[in-house]
Amino acid sequence: MRCFFDERQLGHAPTREFHNGGWTDHAEIPARGATIAATLPAIEPPADHGTAPIAAVHTARYLDFLQNAWADWTAAGRVGDAIGYVFPVVRRRPLDLTRIDARLGAFSMDASTPITAHSWDAAYWGAQCALSAVDALAQGARHGFALCRPPGHHAGADYLGGYCFLNNAAIAARHAVAQGLGPVAILDVDYHHGNGTQDIFLDDPTVFFASIHADPKTDYPFYWGHADETGEGAGAGTTLNLPLPRGTDWTTYASALDTALAAIRAWGARTLIVSFGADTFAGDPIAGFALQTADFTTMAQAIAAAGLPTAIVMEGGYAVDALGANVAAFLAGFTD
Amino acid sequence: MRCFFDERQLGHAPTREFHNGGWTDHAEIPARGATIAATLPAIEPPADHGTAPIAAVHTARYLDFLQNAWADWTAAGRVGDAIGYVFPVVRRRPLDLTRIDARLGAFSMDASTPITAHSWDAAYWGAQCALSAVDALAQGARHGFALCRPPGHHAGADYLGGYCFLNNAAIAARHAVAQGLGPVAILDVDYHHGNGTQDIFLDDPTVFFASIHADPKTDYPFYWGHADETGEGAGAGTTLNLPLPRGTDWTTYASALDTALAAIRAWGARTLIVSFGADTFAGDPIAGFALQTADFTTMAQAIAAAGLPTAIVMEGGYAVDALGANVAAFLAGFTD
Repeated sequence: MRCFFDERQLGHAPTREFHNGGWTDHAEIPARGATIAATLPAIEPPADHGTAPIAAVHTARYLDFLQNAWADWTAAGRVGDAIGYVFPVVRRRPLDLTRIDARLGAFSMDASTPITAHSWDAAYWGAQCALSAVDALAQGARHGFALCRPPGHHAGADYLGGYCFLNNAAIAARHAVAQGLGPVAILDVDYHHGNGTQDIFLDDPTVFFASIHADPKTDYPFYWGHADETGEGAGAGTTLNLPLPRGTDWTTYASALDTALAAIRAWGARTLIVSFGADTFAGDPIAGFALQTADFTTMAQAIAAAGLPTAIVMEGGYAVDALGANVAAFLAGFTD
Repeated sequence: MRCFFDERQLGHAPTREFHNGGWTDHAEIPARGATIAATLPAIEPPADHGTAPIAAVHTARYLDFLQNAWADWTAAGRVGDAIGYVFPVVRRRPLDLTRIDARLGAFSMDASTPITAHSWDAAYWGAQCALSAVDALAQGARHGFALCRPPGHHAGADYLGGYCFLNNAAIAARHAVAQGLGPVAILDVDYHHGNGTQDIFLDDPTVFFASIHADPKTDYPFYWGHADETGEGAGAGTTLNLPLPRGTDWTTYASALDTALAAIRAWGARTLIVSFGADTFAGDPIAGFALQTADFTTMAQAIAAAGLPTAIVMEGGYAVDALGANVAAFLAGFTD
């Protein structure tokens, strides 16, 4: 399988995150990317597609903010990583705000996703990996893997959050449609709901979004991913959420996966984007499912059996010691 | 002037707040209430109106959260003050969420407003002060002062923020209407925009809201208080925002105050609620206007000249050493 990664993705190095009332060491560290890269038999650098395919998903205002946030933060004399502290929870709208702290909150959904000196570069090259994996499909490959790090599925069209800055899966999906590979479905098998991806496509009938994840009543991102969220407007019926309780093992998970794949098939997808998180692993330090390493191969085989050209986009997975093995097990389920 | 205060309001004692990327000592401390109380010639305890007049402003779900948040936080094993870390910035809606961290974010707009062991009691008795000040008007007094601490004007119908839990000014306004004292206008002269009050009455034609405050492009709460916010739906035209630049002194301020009072008069208010913050003082540590202590008397005289029965509700003011003198200067402008 063709695999894409760029060393610049390791430049994003947050030191700590705000979680459950205090600081904790940040879970989304450069070593995640490095350990996955070390397990891949061959890595290609992504082609540089520029910002146009990113701007097909994210707003110009958000991209401008993201590219300048670190410089604005340091220019304001702030110390440490850049994090917002107040958030537009009602009547959110585009505003011309002067202060960097104001802009941070305006373009964030949490206080857990610090911007550091090289966050933009890291996210940019991660998105290029997602685009390059889609290019591989356009060139005839059955499967491609984008080692996206930082991850992407919590980022909306104009907000960061959940360790995510650019929504790689959404960028890949829009690129696939543009390449004539549609209709496109996104299957999100990260432990956490892909709220950013859902939000981007909620009223968009051209991309189907299905997610299997921990029940948001107990798990991040809490406010999205509930079963009654099924799409809006022209996108009604093109969102499928399958929340599962903590403790879920492969037996229960497999049943939800069957449901998601059947819906994707019934909808008529011709290309599949998989948001893959290895944080469903039993040993993940910030998650609560009970999948074993071998289950990832079984999961991938079930997805591959759908018979669709598939671009796999890396999302979460925080058991760093097991991360390479878990990703390798997943990729092993796809045979070209 | 009749003044209302209850010692239980001092029980809310947050230790720190999240601001500009890190922890800072919390500005809204019990000493604020104590120092104002010490300057008042006479204090009455508020009458206990129960939760009904509070529930006329805040949702039942929010009040249930607020009363139980500290117990839920400690039951979950969290340490320190209770603060949310992820916020529903898009598609916010009522949800039944299990985890306390989820509920904290669901009912918050920032990470700067910790809930502590006695926050509910403190906020509850502050609201009772606001209600009692309105009662004084109903009983024929021209002016009444509610020493509300914690403050209230950033709290919305179902969210806390900006050191505020219950919106005392809104509770007072609804109570005044219920007592037959309407039409009611709220004049907010705190340094910060009273976004919660605005939000509560934005589409409500029965209460006029006028605010003079620091430009939200540079100052908290950033996302609300811009001049183009003038009310919505049935409340169109009943909101007036007069943002002013940092550095504003009394000359500039007085002109905005004339504009606000003229609008309140033109609208036909029969009763006035004043959200008074002393953080427009030149020496305030977290604000940027340049008013002097004597200016507060001049400000109050201008407000009193409107000739309306007026309940004054305490909001911000963080120069604790000067706070008593600044409040006393303001109250001296109202002669019964």
